[in-house]
Amino acid sequence: MRPSREIHLAARPQGMPDTGDFVLVEVGVPEPADGEVLIQNAYISVDPYMRGRMNDAKSYVPPFALGEVMTGGAVGRVVASQNDRFREGAWVVHNLGWREFALSDGKGLLPFDTTAAPASTGLGVLGMPGLTAYVGLLDVGRVEAGETVYVSGAAGAVGSAVGQIAKLKGCRVIGSAGSAEKVAWLKEIGFDEAFDYHDVPAREALGEGIDVYFDNVGGSTLEAALAALRLRGRIVACGAISQYNATEPPVAPRNLFLVVTKRLRMEGFIVSDHFDRMAAFLNEVAPHVRDCSLRYRETVVDGIQNAPAAFIGLLMGENIGKMLVRVGPDDA
Amino acid sequence: MRPSREIHLAARPQGMPDTGDFVLVEVGVPEPADGEVLIQNAYISVDPYMRGRMNDAKSYVPPFALGEVMTGGAVGRVVASQNDRFREGAWVVHNLGWREFALSDGKGLLPFDTTAAPASTGLGVLGMPGLTAYVGLLDVGRVEAGETVYVSGAAGAVGSAVGQIAKLKGCRVIGSAGSAEKVAWLKEIGFDEAFDYHDVPAREALGEGIDVYFDNVGGSTLEAALAALRLRGRIVACGAISQYNATEPPVAPRNLFLVVTKRLRMEGFIVSDHFDRMAAFLNEVAPHVRDCSLRYRETVVDGIQNAPAAFIGLLMGENIGKMLVRVGPDDA
Repeated sequence: MRPSREIHLAARPQGMPDTGDFVLVEVGVPEPADGEVLIQNAYISVDPYMRGRMNDAKSYVPPFALGEVMTGGAVGRVVASQNDRFREGAWVVHNLGWREFALSDGKGLLPFDTTAAPASTGLGVLGMPGLTAYVGLLDVGRVEAGETVYVSGAAGAVGSAVGQIAKLKGCRVIGSAGSAEKVAWLKEIGFDEAFDYHDVPAREALGEGIDVYFDNVGGSTLEAALAALRLRGRIVACGAISQYNATEPPVAPRNLFLVVTKRLRMEGFIVSDHFDRMAAFLNEVAPHVRDCSLRYRETVVDGIQNAPAAFIGLLMGENIGKMLVRVGPDDA
Repeated sequence: MRPSREIHLAARPQGMPDTGDFVLVEVGVPEPADGEVLIQNAYISVDPYMRGRMNDAKSYVPPFALGEVMTGGAVGRVVASQNDRFREGAWVVHNLGWREFALSDGKGLLPFDTTAAPASTGLGVLGMPGLTAYVGLLDVGRVEAGETVYVSGAAGAVGSAVGQIAKLKGCRVIGSAGSAEKVAWLKEIGFDEAFDYHDVPAREALGEGIDVYFDNVGGSTLEAALAALRLRGRIVACGAISQYNATEPPVAPRNLFLVVTKRLRMEGFIVSDHFDRMAAFLNEVAPHVRDCSLRYRETVVDGIQNAPAAFIGLLMGENIGKMLVRVGPDDA
């Protein structure tokens, strides 16, 4: 039988991970038993939150176990089924992670409709990152038409959806990202303003003030946003990619008392608490993806053996839009 | 005519104020013109937020002007009236500040019922500090019965009301303060736990976790509370007395990313936005003050010339309960 390759965590990194923290393992492809399905993955997802799971620390998801597969989002096709709910050929999104073939008892498998959009979007603009943007902006940030929204990490899978959903809601949108190419893309997809944080201090770029800050970055960017927020502004606390590889605790923001003087609300959320909003999200956002009024990009790396490098690249900001690893056929 | 004495701001302090930053000035007592009332103050209020107003920085209230009276809360009696709404002998709370006699056109004067409680409580448990506790706990923190509430600065005017209102709402209450005497008083008035932050690190005292943190202190206490907050906990951001005299920006909290992982909400508020809740507050809380099921203490300094020292003492934590300066007769 042909093997299935998968990526295991080999060591817990200090600071930025390197490829030696991972190991490629070959295993046999199992046969599904009664009630089970075998999935051949087309894409696996690399996401910033996974960095936290590499540490041996209690958090909202348990840490990855040493010597075990890196779990996480993936999309693939059912290639053998002993489960009536999933026929062979069906596309499914699941959380079984960095492997070419996955065996499932059906729990946690989400059917994905590839007639509307490519399978890869089930991990991006129509998947967890898109839902993160939707829930964060609407349920946590409660944005209103006419408000100014600032999103950092704006050229990523979440950030680019945040900006475009905010535009659909009638907001003015400012985004920051880490290269001229990213900034150009943000302007192309309708951001009112976009800046490269290497070139322009955020505090300066936000001079006229903002109502909502969607934070993917933390640290000094959060400090700049606190300074720029208007009365009764909101901080949607989603991520802090500037800190995930830090070996020292961050010193910023040092102006947190502005939460009091400006009556700000800062609220954190985890998308997995909000899967009940998936249907509303897809109903509202999928049509915009289909007619290209909401756009997305993907940065695709080929081959499961390159998943660690893709993940490290993501942490270094090498992606535009959703970072994916293609590990199998993606023809629908 | 006898003079009225008042305290003016003489210099803007760096760090902890000293008495040389203030000056005592004698002025004539004016006669009320048509529509005006003359008030003889019984008590003036010294409050932590006033430290921020001594800096020349834009904030939620304008800075005190150099060479002008320190405005702020006071309670007194109308001694001459040319205004039909306020008869001579009426007790009123107002914001005209650190002076023995105040002239008012009636705007911003709040009648105070001294048959229910002494005039001094109009600046404390039944005034702005009490309302701050009420609005912060109920409207911002949305505490529920069975939750654990931690309040820092617990022996102050706001903190002692926070703890007791939380108890009335069926919460478990932990308080921290800066002396053994304060801690003993907190236990006496019904706090489930109380600790002296000099003796016990907050992180240790909060070991079993909290649902709501009412923050009067900021800095490292906020950091400890972030660590102790449970999932979906709330931070009621009210004050940061640990920082008001700081000459360097604070480095704590360094664990703010816990807002994301624990889905926390941190929200700031300013009591003056919530004066519409005064009637509900008095209806609910005044009966408890009257029957002593909600208790208060006052630390009273005599003589307007001692107001600067009282204020500095407040910033150094020398008060138990509400810090007041008696500047005139308080017989109702």
